[in-house]
Amino acid sequence: MTLTVLFAAGDAAFADYEAPLTRALSEAGLDARLVTEAAPEDVDYIVTAPNGWVQDFTPYTNTKAVQTLWAGVEGIVGNDTLTQPLARMVDDEGLTQGMVEWVTGHVLRHHLGMDAHIVNPDHAWDHQAPPLAAERTVTILGLGTLGTACARMLATVGFDMRGWSRTEKSVEDVACHHGDAGFGTALDGADIVVLLLPDTAATRNVLDAAAIGRLARGAVVINPGRGPLIDDDALLAALDEGQLSHATLDVFRTEPLPQDHPFWAHPRVTVTPHIASETRTDSAAREVAANIARCERGETLKGLVDRDRGY
Amino acid sequence: MTLTVLFAAGDAAFADYEAPLTRALSEAGLDARLVTEAAPEDVDYIVTAPNGWVQDFTPYTNTKAVQTLWAGVEGIVGNDTLTQPLARMVDDEGLTQGMVEWVTGHVLRHHLGMDAHIVNPDHAWDHQAPPLAAERTVTILGLGTLGTACARMLATVGFDMRGWSRTEKSVEDVACHHGDAGFGTALDGADIVVLLLPDTAATRNVLDAAAIGRLARGAVVINPGRGPLIDDDALLAALDEGQLSHATLDVFRTEPLPQDHPFWAHPRVTVTPHIASETRTDSAAREVAANIARCERGETLKGLVDRDRGY
Repeated sequence: MTLTVLFAAGDAAFADYEAPLTRALSEAGLDARLVTEAAPEDVDYIVTAPNGWVQDFTPYTNTKAVQTLWAGVEGIVGNDTLTQPLARMVDDEGLTQGMVEWVTGHVLRHHLGMDAHIVNPDHAWDHQAPPLAAERTVTILGLGTLGTACARMLATVGFDMRGWSRTEKSVEDVACHHGDAGFGTALDGADIVVLLLPDTAATRNVLDAAAIGRLARGAVVINPGRGPLIDDDALLAALDEGQLSHATLDVFRTEPLPQDHPFWAHPRVTVTPHIASETRTDSAAREVAANIARCERGETLKGLVDRDRGY
Repeated sequence: MTLTVLFAAGDAAFADYEAPLTRALSEAGLDARLVTEAAPEDVDYIVTAPNGWVQDFTPYTNTKAVQTLWAGVEGIVGNDTLTQPLARMVDDEGLTQGMVEWVTGHVLRHHLGMDAHIVNPDHAWDHQAPPLAAERTVTILGLGTLGTACARMLATVGFDMRGWSRTEKSVEDVACHHGDAGFGTALDGADIVVLLLPDTAATRNVLDAAAIGRLARGAVVINPGRGPLIDDDALLAALDEGQLSHATLDVFRTEPLPQDHPFWAHPRVTVTPHIASETRTDSAAREVAANIARCERGETLKGLVDRDRGY
C-alpha cells in the first residue's frame, strides 16, 4: 500500500526538498507519495520543522512517526498534542560534517591568534609562533552526535581534548567527564570551551559566571549550540574583566541578533549568523527516507527523541 | 671517544638549545660535549643555521656532518666550502605539526568565509551556510614532509585534495600530479592553492600569471613556503582584477616585510610574520641527537640534502 508522507515544514522548504526527498524515498525502495495536503487520518509520516504549519498533531491518528528537519527540537518537544514518535535530524554527511568544519576552523582561528593578523592596521610584525595544539586544552560541553564528531576531529588535529556529557560517554583520545560531579573538572583551566549541548531546562545558562570562572584566564568561548546555554550578562562581564579574551557565537536567544544587542559592538565578540551547520537537503532527504524505511521494518528511529530529557 | 658537537647557530639560539640539546644527546646514548668554540679539526658535528657564524667549512676536515636547525636550506646549500654531508631539519613533532595547524586553520578560515564575520561593521546577518569541504578543491604545491602532512590532514577534514610535486608521489586520499606535465592539471579550477615547495632556481616565481589564471575564479592563495615562489606583481594584479579573492602570505622576499610594501595595505592580503611554523627547541634537539646517532651507526642522515636539486 502506498505510504502518505506529509511535508509540513513550509512552502519554501518544500521547494528545496521535493526533488531530493522524492528521489530518496524511491531509492530507499519505498512506495510513497510526498504531499503537502492530505486528510489527517490518511497520513503515515509527517516531515516537519519546529516552525512547521502542523502544530496540532491530534487529528493524525494513523501517523507512525514525525521527523523534523532540524537537529534542535526545543521548539517542538513541548507540544503536548505530539504523541507520535518524534525523530530529530541526524545528518552525518551534511549537518554533522558542516559542524565539524566550523568548530575546527574557529578553534584553530583562536589557537593561532589569526585575528591579530587579519586586522593589523599598524602593520605589526611580531615573529612569535603560537604554541602547538597539544599545549591547548579544549573542552566540548555535550557529547552527542555533533559534540563527539567535533571532539574526535580536534583530537586528530592534535588538541588536548576534554568532553562533558550528562551521562557517561567514552570517546577515543578525549578525556570524558559526566554529570554534575564532572562538570567543574571538565572546565578547570580549559583554554577554549565549545558548547554543543541541547537546549533544555537543565542546560539553560549552563555557562554562567561560576563556570566561566573555572576556565583558564583569557579563555575563549565558542557557541555553535544554542543561545540560552550562555548567561549573556556573565559572558559580557567576563570579557570586560579579562577572564575571557574572546567569544565567537553562532546562536542567540533572539535571531537574527537585534542590531542594538551589545554582542554586535563588543570588540571581543564575533557574531556568525547561525551558519555553523545547516541541514543539507540531499543528505537530509536520504536520512528521512532511511528513517521511514526503518519504521516500516519495525526498527527504532534514528534520532528518536526522549521527551522526558527533552532531546 | 667523546664526540665534539660545535653549536654555530649563534648565541641567542644557543641559550635556547643548550639545555634541551645536552639532554637529548645524553638520552640518545651519545658520549658528546656540546661547545660553541673548538679547534676546527676536533669537531665531529656542526649544528648550525643558514645564518650561523661558521661560513667557511674548509678547516673542519674531520667533521662527519652538518645539521641545520631550519627546514629551508636555500641560504646554505650554495656554500661551496660546505662539502660535508648536510642535513636539513625534519621535526615532525614540532615544525611539521605546527605547519599542519597553520595551514589547516587558514584553509578553513577561507573555506568558511570567516573574515566577513570577524570584520562586520554593518552588523550584516547573512544566513547562508558555506559549502561543505568536499565541495572545495585544495591544491598543495610540494609534497615533501610538510606538504604531505598538510594534504593528509586536509583530506581528513574532508576537502577535495590535490597535490603536485617535481617527482612522482603517492599520498592517500590526495590526487597526486607531478612534473611539468602535471602542473597545470593540479591547478585547473582549484579553489585554494597552498605553496609548500622549497626555494630553488626551478621553483622561483612558480606561481606566476599563467599559473594563477588556471585556478578557479576568485581563488585563494596561501603561502607558508618561501617568498620567491610567487611573482608578487602577478599576484597583486590578479587580486585587483578579481581572479584571486584573497592571499594569505607568511613568507616574503624580504623579511620583515618592509612597511611600504603594497601587501601591507592591500585589503585582500593577510600578512602573517613568518610564524606558520618554527623549529621547536625540545623536539628539534631530539632530532639533532637522533641524526648524530644515525651517523655514528653508519646510517643515512634524516633530511640529507641533495645539493644538485637544492634541498
